Amino acid sequence: MSVFWNSRVRSLKPYLPGEQPRDRKFIKLNTNENPYPPSPRVTEAIARTAGADLRLYPDPASTALREAIAERTGVRPEQVFAGNGSDEVLAFVFAAFFENGGTAEPVLFPDITYSFYPVYARLWGVPFETVPLSAGFTLDLSAYRRPSGGVIFPNPNAPTGILHDPAELLLLARDLAARNRVLVVDEAYGVFAPGTGKAAFPLSGAASLLPYINEYPNILTVHTFSKAGSLAGLRAGFAAGSEPLIAALCRVRDSFNSYPLDALAAAGAEAAARDGEYYAETTARIIGTRERTVSALRDRGFEVLPSAANFMFIRRPGKSGAALFAGLRKRGILARHFNGPRTADFLRVSAGTDSDMDFFVQAITETLEET
Amino acid sequence: MSVFWNSRVRSLKPYLPGEQPRDRKFIKLNTNENPYPPSPRVTEAIARTAGADLRLYPDPASTALREAIAERTGVRPEQVFAGNGSDEVLAFVFAAFFENGGTAEPVLFPDITYSFYPVYARLWGVPFETVPLSAGFTLDLSAYRRPSGGVIFPNPNAPTGILHDPAELLLLARDLAARNRVLVVDEAYGVFAPGTGKAAFPLSGAASLLPYINEYPNILTVHTFSKAGSLAGLRAGFAAGSEPLIAALCRVRDSFNSYPLDALAAAGAEAAARDGEYYAETTARIIGTRERTVSALRDRGFEVLPSAANFMFIRRPGKSGAALFAGLRKRGILARHFNGPRTADFLRVSAGTDSDMDFFVQAITETLEET
Repeated sequence: MSVFWNSRVRSLKPYLPGEQPRDRKFIKLNTNENPYPPSPRVTEAIARTAGADLRLYPDPASTALREAIAERTGVRPEQVFAGNGSDEVLAFVFAAFFENGGTAEPVLFPDITYSFYPVYARLWGVPFETVPLSAGFTLDLSAYRRPSGGVIFPNPNAPTGILHDPAELLLLARDLAARNRVLVVDEAYGVFAPGTGKAAFPLSGAASLLPYINEYPNILTVHTFSKAGSLAGLRAGFAAGSEPLIAALCRVRDSFNSYPLDALAAAGAEAAARDGEYYAETTARIIGTRERTVSALRDRGFEVLPSAANFMFIRRPGKSGAALFAGLRKRGILARHFNGPRTADFLRVSAGTDSDMDFFVQAITETLEET
Repeated sequence: MSVFWNSRVRSLKPYLPGEQPRDRKFIKLNTNENPYPPSPRVTEAIARTAGADLRLYPDPASTALREAIAERTGVRPEQVFAGNGSDEVLAFVFAAFFENGGTAEPVLFPDITYSFYPVYARLWGVPFETVPLSAGFTLDLSAYRRPSGGVIFPNPNAPTGILHDPAELLLLARDLAARNRVLVVDEAYGVFAPGTGKAAFPLSGAASLLPYINEYPNILTVHTFSKAGSLAGLRAGFAAGSEPLIAALCRVRDSFNSYPLDALAAAGAEAAARDGEYYAETTARIIGTRERTVSALRDRGFEVLPSAANFMFIRRPGKSGAALFAGLRKRGILARHFNGPRTADFLRVSAGTDSDMDFFVQAITETLEET
């Protein structure tokens, strides 16, 4: 605390990202990174761009990237917004669509979800209420059908990994539209959903609401290159929605930073957006590894929530999440433990390579024996 | 306008960056980009990083970059904050130090200055008042010595290029500290100030307030790699200040985007920060070219404000800035015209290479003849 901090800074409760160790070699299963490298075309595109005119400002609108995304997902470039990771896109969402101030209706999101949402809400002064997930950790959509400032949740949800039926989300969107409210679906993990065969790898999954943005002017879907695209180091994300929604995000961006995507990130993400074949294969491998790991965990008495993402949310009756976390860490594996009232028993574990997960299964088996 | 826009989005007046043409080949003298490429070490560092683990999230704190900056500028890494261009750093400054809401004291900045300041203020709901520059376009520092929410201006100022005496700024800082207010000095162009021989190229100039941050806990200096560093395409900037000021910026960042600098930008900026020799030379060339151009313009009857930056703010009595702008554009040269009450007669012209500026002088001479 300092006399120079304003009241906003004093009131913030910053997000704490998963540990990124710089010293020791860990198997990182804590931030849902992709175990495979990005498409070789990404590296080529970056090298080409680095050798060109870095002295010049990048295209403020990231036009080439947005055109690639639009082409692969079947929408128009004017329906796509690009940002410095989906985190920045989400920050702009809270600035653009959810009303701030004490008299505003609260925005709604689940009690167990991406823990950055309440952080964004505090940053922009947006009132919010959380809606409890059901006992089975699914979204209780009926509870969102009341006056609100708007609704946001991930699909699949994080950290549960559970996918919700898009048809039901469309009914909710219809309700919200009647009250001029936006439904934001954070599809960071959407590419890992079942039926991804027809999806636009690595951009969007089979259960995405992206194909409905023409019909539903109040649906905004948010996507990232960090997970399926294997480009967490590049910081590129995007949103898709009707032109008025995209225009609102542009107004916020142009009041914050005219060029949020640097030339290298834009070129790398564009190359990834165009290499569907490569990402179809790496995504299939990750899903295969996840299913193998789920079986091995269930064989050892774990409860594993049904995951449509590149991670598993697991618990072992009688063991605390903290004890499992510590046992894994001692053995060189980082997982993520969320110490909330309903999540304290759980661990979130990313799907790595087959050999990562063999090591993980052995380490968690040893942990069970000693705790 | 849309029913889905909240009241903030409706009230914004977004910043309009200088044109970045994608089609035709212009000599770009409109956004103060560097005419020389970045240090070759930057390209090498980017290639190395692109071949490594882009699948992993970057270091959220950009530690290696901050260590390089601290080393070259003689401060501690805890006194340095890195962001996605100095524009993002400035956006965080308005969120962290200037109070918002109708009853807050207004933040003060010049009437003629970086036109993003009022945009940031509206984004965060910060009241502001502008303080007129003197008739000679210098800062009137006495006018800032009244109760306020804080003070921000560039030194050298933009678009005038005029440098203010650091000793006088320190007196103002002392006044502001007594009222718990912050003085933010935006030193985007500081490296081009006279006496740069001792400066930490391409980070900070001879007239910088950076060396005073230990003594003045309320001074924050803001810097960019886009201008002297020739890395506009990379989007990297930083701030230096006392640890409580840096902690406030971190709190805002961690409520907005945990990883604002991607791995490539951080590596490239670090390489630039470490190559002082290269940038000392390119900066000296730009200053030489600027002085040659100033002479040529004065020979042709132009008034040129005394510039300590990599641009010139010029007018020709009897000619409008709009007419000069149009004449240059027709001849393939982009300059910047700010159509404000006191700036309408002026053009801001970046210093390019010698051959760029020969072409420019010829084009503006022809323009004078035809208008």
